[in-house]
Amino acid sequence: MPKQIDHEIRRKQIAEATWRVILERGMEGASARNIAKEAGLSLGALRHYFSTQDELLAFAMKLVQEKVTDRIKDIAVRDLLPKEKVLQILLEMVPTNEETIREMEVWFAFTAYARHKKDMFDASHDGIFSGMRNLIAYLDESDLLKQNADKDIEAERLYALVDGLALHAMLDPVRVNKDRIKRVIIQHVESICVEDTRETQKRHP
Amino acid sequence: MPKQIDHEIRRKQIAEATWRVILERGMEGASARNIAKEAGLSLGALRHYFSTQDELLAFAMKLVQEKVTDRIKDIAVRDLLPKEKVLQILLEMVPTNEETIREMEVWFAFTAYARHKKDMFDASHDGIFSGMRNLIAYLDESDLLKQNADKDIEAERLYALVDGLALHAMLDPVRVNKDRIKRVIIQHVESICVEDTRETQKRHP
Repeated sequence: MPKQIDHEIRRKQIAEATWRVILERGMEGASARNIAKEAGLSLGALRHYFSTQDELLAFAMKLVQEKVTDRIKDIAVRDLLPKEKVLQILLEMVPTNEETIREMEVWFAFTAYARHKKDMFDASHDGIFSGMRNLIAYLDESDLLKQNADKDIEAERLYALVDGLALHAMLDPVRVNKDRIKRVIIQHVESICVEDTRETQKRHP
Repeated sequence: MPKQIDHEIRRKQIAEATWRVILERGMEGASARNIAKEAGLSLGALRHYFSTQDELLAFAMKLVQEKVTDRIKDIAVRDLLPKEKVLQILLEMVPTNEETIREMEVWFAFTAYARHKKDMFDASHDGIFSGMRNLIAYLDESDLLKQNADKDIEAERLYALVDGLALHAMLDPVRVNKDRIKRVIIQHVESICVEDTRETQKRHP
C-alpha cells in the first residue's frame, strides 16, 4: 500500500478509536494514553500520526462533520421532488439511529471541551447555517415557500429547530424518537410552505 | 447568623465559585483544588460543605436551573395578555445577556460532563418539556392556538426551537443576538396562533 494512503487510513483508525474513548469516558477520559491503548498503538506511534492531543481531537471532529456532509450530498443529488428532498436532508441532520446518535454525542462532548481552547475548532462556523439558507432559498425557487416569509429569519428558525431536535434526540432518545422527529420536521416544513396543489387536487378531485 | 442559614449561603458561594471555574477552565479544570482556591477556602473546608466533587457539581447545576425557573415564575404571575406572556417566557429561556449566556455555558459544559456519570444529574428530565406543553395548552385555552394544531407535536417543536436558539446564542452570539432571537420567537408564535382580531381591527379599522 502506498505510504501516504496507509498514513491517512491509520489516522482515520485513530480518530475512530478517539470517538470510542470519548463515548465511553467523556472528554476527561480522552487522554493520549487511553486513545493509544484503544487504537492498539504505543504512545510513541500515536505521536507519529498526531504530534499534539488537540491536533488529534480536531481531526477526529472534522471526520464526524465530513460523514454528515457526505450523507447530505448523497441526498442532494437524488432525483426527488423539492419538498421531499428538503425533508430528507433535514431528517439526515437529526440523529435517529445508533450511529448518528454516537456522532452527536462526540460532537457535543467535543464542542463543550473546545469552548475553552482557543484556535482549536470553531463550532460557530461549521457552515450549517449557510446550508439552511440554501434549503430555504431552494424551497422559494421551487415556488413552495409562503410568499410573505422572511427568508433570513426562516433559515435561523429552521436551524434552531434542527439543532434543538438533535440535542433532544441525544438527551432523551425515548421520547424524541425517529417517528416523533419526523412528525415535527414534516409539521414545520408544511407550515412554512404553501399548500401543495397536487395534494389539494388529490384531496378535492 | 443562624448556623443553618450560614451553611446554605456558603454552599451558594461555593456554587458560584464553581461556575466561574467552569467558565474559565471548562469541566476539565473544575477540580476540588481549583474550586476551593476560587472560593477562598482550604480543601478541607470545601469538603465540609460538599463531601464529593459530584455532589458539589450537581448542586451548582441545580442552582442554575432554579435561577431560570424563578425568572419564569416572575413573568407567569404578571398581568399580561396571554400571547405577550408566552412570548416573554420564551424569551427568558434563551440567553440574551452576559449573565444568562454564562448560565447556558455552565449548563452545556455540565451536561456534556454528566453524560458519562451515572446517577448524577439527568438532563433529560429537567421539566422543560412539560413547561412547553403548558404554554401550548395556555395558548389553546386562550383561543389563540390554531384549531387544527397537534398540541403534542407543537410542544415538541417549540421546545426544540427554544433549545436550538439557546445553543446558537451561546455558540454564535454575534449572529444570534437578542434582536434576532426575538424576531425568530415572535415569528414562531405568530405562525402557530390565529390572527389576533384586535390587531386586525387596528390594521383595518
